[in-house]
Amino acid sequence: MSVRAGVVVTGTEVLTGRVIDRNGPWVSERLGELGVDHAHTIVVGDREEDMLAALRFLVEEGMALIVTTGGLGPTEDDRTAEIVGRFQGRELVLDEPTEERIWEILSRLRSRWPELEEAALREANRKQALVPRGAEILAPVGTAPGLLVPPSGGASGPLIVVLPGPPRELREMWSAAASSAAFRAAVAGAVDYRSRMLRLYGIPESEIAATLRAARLEGVDLEPLEITTCLRRGEIEIVTRWEPGADAAYAAFEGVVRSRHPDTLFSDDGRSVDQQVADLLRASGDAVACAESCTGGLLSARITELDGASAYFPGGLVTYANEAKTELAGVDPGLIESFGAVSAEVAEAMADGARAALGASIGVGITGIAGPGGGTESKPVGTVWLSVSRSDGARLTRRVLLPGGRADVRDRSTTVAMHLLRRILLGESDSGAAGSGAGEGAPPSAEAAGETRGASGPAATEGAPLGDGQ
Amino acid sequence: MSVRAGVVVTGTEVLTGRVIDRNGPWVSERLGELGVDHAHTIVVGDREEDMLAALRFLVEEGMALIVTTGGLGPTEDDRTAEIVGRFQGRELVLDEPTEERIWEILSRLRSRWPELEEAALREANRKQALVPRGAEILAPVGTAPGLLVPPSGGASGPLIVVLPGPPRELREMWSAAASSAAFRAAVAGAVDYRSRMLRLYGIPESEIAATLRAARLEGVDLEPLEITTCLRRGEIEIVTRWEPGADAAYAAFEGVVRSRHPDTLFSDDGRSVDQQVADLLRASGDAVACAESCTGGLLSARITELDGASAYFPGGLVTYANEAKTELAGVDPGLIESFGAVSAEVAEAMADGARAALGASIGVGITGIAGPGGGTESKPVGTVWLSVSRSDGARLTRRVLLPGGRADVRDRSTTVAMHLLRRILLGESDSGAAGSGAGEGAPPSAEAAGETRGASGPAATEGAPLGDGQ
Repeated sequence: MSVRAGVVVTGTEVLTGRVIDRNGPWVSERLGELGVDHAHTIVVGDREEDMLAALRFLVEEGMALIVTTGGLGPTEDDRTAEIVGRFQGRELVLDEPTEERIWEILSRLRSRWPELEEAALREANRKQALVPRGAEILAPVGTAPGLLVPPSGGASGPLIVVLPGPPRELREMWSAAASSAAFRAAVAGAVDYRSRMLRLYGIPESEIAATLRAARLEGVDLEPLEITTCLRRGEIEIVTRWEPGADAAYAAFEGVVRSRHPDTLFSDDGRSVDQQVADLLRASGDAVACAESCTGGLLSARITELDGASAYFPGGLVTYANEAKTELAGVDPGLIESFGAVSAEVAEAMADGARAALGASIGVGITGIAGPGGGTESKPVGTVWLSVSRSDGARLTRRVLLPGGRADVRDRSTTVAMHLLRRILLGESDSGAAGSGAGEGAPPSAEAAGETRGASGPAATEGAPLGDGQ
Repeated sequence: MSVRAGVVVTGTEVLTGRVIDRNGPWVSERLGELGVDHAHTIVVGDREEDMLAALRFLVEEGMALIVTTGGLGPTEDDRTAEIVGRFQGRELVLDEPTEERIWEILSRLRSRWPELEEAALREANRKQALVPRGAEILAPVGTAPGLLVPPSGGASGPLIVVLPGPPRELREMWSAAASSAAFRAAVAGAVDYRSRMLRLYGIPESEIAATLRAARLEGVDLEPLEITTCLRRGEIEIVTRWEPGADAAYAAFEGVVRSRHPDTLFSDDGRSVDQQVADLLRASGDAVACAESCTGGLLSARITELDGASAYFPGGLVTYANEAKTELAGVDPGLIESFGAVSAEVAEAMADGARAALGASIGVGITGIAGPGGGTESKPVGTVWLSVSRSDGARLTRRVLLPGGRADVRDRSTTVAMHLLRRILLGESDSGAAGSGAGEGAPPSAEAAGETRGASGPAATEGAPLGDGQ
C-alpha cells in the first residue's frame, strides 16, 4: 500500500497565471525521491472556502501528507497559517521567539530601505509570527517561518507541511521539514520506486505509441511499468517508474526502445542534451561561439545556464540587424542580397564569423523567421536555417520549419542548435571533411550544399516533432 | 451567484514537474475574461482513479464548467477522452469523419518522416478518433480533436471541455470551444468583473501590507475588492478584481497607492516594463545595444521577445570571457586589471562599447557574479554592476546584490536593466548631463562616480525586493 501525498499551491496570482508555479513540480520530485506517491496538486486562489475544500478533498483521497505552498507573507491576502490551523483544529497564537527572529531579519532589510517606517515593519513582523498552537516551527529563510501542523487532539489525519511561496525560500526550508520526526513518521512505509528517463530527438510521438505496441507483441510485460511519454522543447521523454520486483520487465522494455530507435535515442541517464554538449566540449577542449539572429541571444543564454560554461564559451554575437551580421560576424553583404538573411549561406557565414570574432573552434549561426510577421510563401514563419562549423572543416547545416508562435520558434531553434552541436562534437559532418584538414571556412559548392540543405534531404528529418496532442 | 469553473491538467510529466503547465494559467485568464470564477486547477497524473476523483471533487464544489487539458495523444497513457466519457456516462465510439481528418494530417506528417510505417500511424490515428458517444467534436489543430462532453441522458452536471496538451493546439482550439452553444449555455449568467493591475518596483512587499492598513485607516472600504499582491521577477504586482458596483471603492484604494508610492509605481495599465521600454524607444527613435557577461544573452533575448524589436534593437554582444570584453566591447584591459571584471568601470565601458559596436544611441553593460561559484567577501554571489549610457552623455550606473540562485540572479539582472533603460529614456541621469551635450562617452570622475555608485548611494535602494514569503 503506497504512501500518498498531495500539494496545495495557494495564490490567486498562481491560479490566474500571472506567476508560474515552480513549487508544485519541485516538491513532487522530492516526494518521488522519498518513494511517496504524489497524487494531486491543487492550485487555489486566496479564498478560505476554496482552500478548505482542497484540504478536505485530499484528506478524503487518503493522503498521509499534505504540503502547502505560499500565503505566508505580510499582506492580508496571505492566510495559509490561519486556514491550515483551523482545518487541523488549532487556534492561532503569537510565537514570541519567532517574532524576535523575524524582527532581526527585518532590521537588516530596513538598512536597505532606510525610509521604511518601523511601525509598519513591526505589524508585518507580528502577522508572520502568528502560528497554529502546537505546530512545529521551521526557521524562516526569508521572513516567513514554515510549519508542520498535525491534527489536534490525537485525531487521525495527515500532517500538513506549510511552506513559503518564493521558490528559493521553499527549497532551502525543505530539508528541515523532510528530516523532522513528524514528517518521517507520516511517510513511513513508502515504496522505494525505481525510475528511468529515456530522451529521443527527431521522431514524432506516434512512433513511441508504435514501439509500445511492438513491445507487447514481442511478449514484454508492460503491466508493472508506469510509462509516461511527453514532448518537451522538441524532444520526446519516456519516463518509466516501477517497483523493485519489475526490474526485468523494465530491462526488456528499454531493450525494445533501443533496438527500434538506435539513432534518435540520445540520452538514457537523465542527462539533457545541454549537459551532454557541455561534457563533450570539456572533453574535446573545443570552445563554442554563437551568432544569433531570430533567437536574439537565447542560445548563448542557454549555453551559459550551466555553471562553469566559461570553460568552453567565450561569448556570442546577437546580430539582429543585417548591418550587425555584416559588421560583427563578417557576413558578406552580397550573400544577404543574393540569398536573403534567412538562408543557408548566411547561417554558414554567421557560424564562421562567430568563430572568428570570439576565437572559438566551433561556431553556430542561426537565422530565421520567428514571426508573427515576416513570413513569405517560400519562407513561412517558423523557417530557420542553422549551421554549426568547426575549425577542422566539419560542418552541419540544416533548415527546419518549426511549429508554434514566436516564443516556440525561438525556443525550439535552440534545441535544434544543441543537437547539431552534439552531433558535430560526436564527429558528424555533412561533407565528411571533419578532421580531413579541408581548410577553415571552405564554402561548400552550391550543388553539394543543395544535397545537404534541401527540404528533401536530411533537413527534412531534422525537424523537431510536431505536437501530436499529448 | 457566480459561475464557477475548474481545470484538470492531466499528465504525470506535468504533475512531477518535467513539464511546466502553461495551460491552466492560460485557460484561467480566458475564463476570467468571460467573467467566470475559476476556483481550482487540479494537476493529476495519468491514472484513471485520480482523474475521476478530481472530476468528482469539482462537481461537488459546484462547477458549471470543467476544462481538461492533455491526455489526447496516440500513446496508451493518454486516456482523457475515455475517462471523461465514462464520468459523463458516455461510451467510446469511433468517429469516422474524425478518423479521416486525422489521417489526412498524418499523411502530411508522414512526408516529413518517410521511414514511418503506415500501419503504426493508422493505429495511432484510430485511437485518437475514439470519442464519447454524443460529444461535440472540435477539429484537430495537431492530430487530436477536442471534445465538448455534457452529462448523458439529460442529467444535471457540468459541461466538460476536453482540450489537447500542447499549448499551441489548446490555444488555437479555444475559440471554437468557447463560441459553441453548449459552452455559452454553461457559463450563462457570469458576472462581468472589472480588474486592474498596478506594478511597482524598488520596495519590499511589506510596504504594500502597510499601504493596505493605511487605506483602511483612511476609511477606504476594501471589503468589495479582491486584492492580491505578488512578487514577480523582482517587481510587485497588485491585482484587484471587483464587481461593477464597487468602482468608487477601487478608485479610492488606487488613490492611496498612488499617493504613498509615487516613485515606485511604474505601471497602471497592465503594460510591463518591457512594453514601456519598447514604446519609449519607438517614441524617441533611440536604438539600444547590450554587452552582457553574467546574463549571457538573456537581456538581448528579453528585448527581442517582443515582436517588432528590430525597429530599435540592432543587436548585442555576449562578452563572457575577459578577452571578449576587450576585443568585442573595447573594454580597456587595464580597467579589468585594476577594478576587476565585476566593477562599475567595466560595466560602463561595456555599455559604451556596445553602443559603439552596434552603432546604437543607448548601450547597456551587465557584469556580475551569478554563482554558484566565484563569490568573494567584497563581491558575493549576486553582486551585479549595471550601466546604461546614452550618446548625449546621460548615464545610470548601479550595483545590486540580488538574492537567489544562478537562474534568479541572471533573470533579476535583466529586470534591473529594464528599469534603468526605462529611467534613462524618461530623462534621468546620474550626472544630470542628459541633453547637455557633455559629449559621448565622457568618463565620470572617480569622485563623482563614487557618489552614484557606492553601496550607500542610490544603488542601495535599487535592489530588487527580497522575497518576503508570499
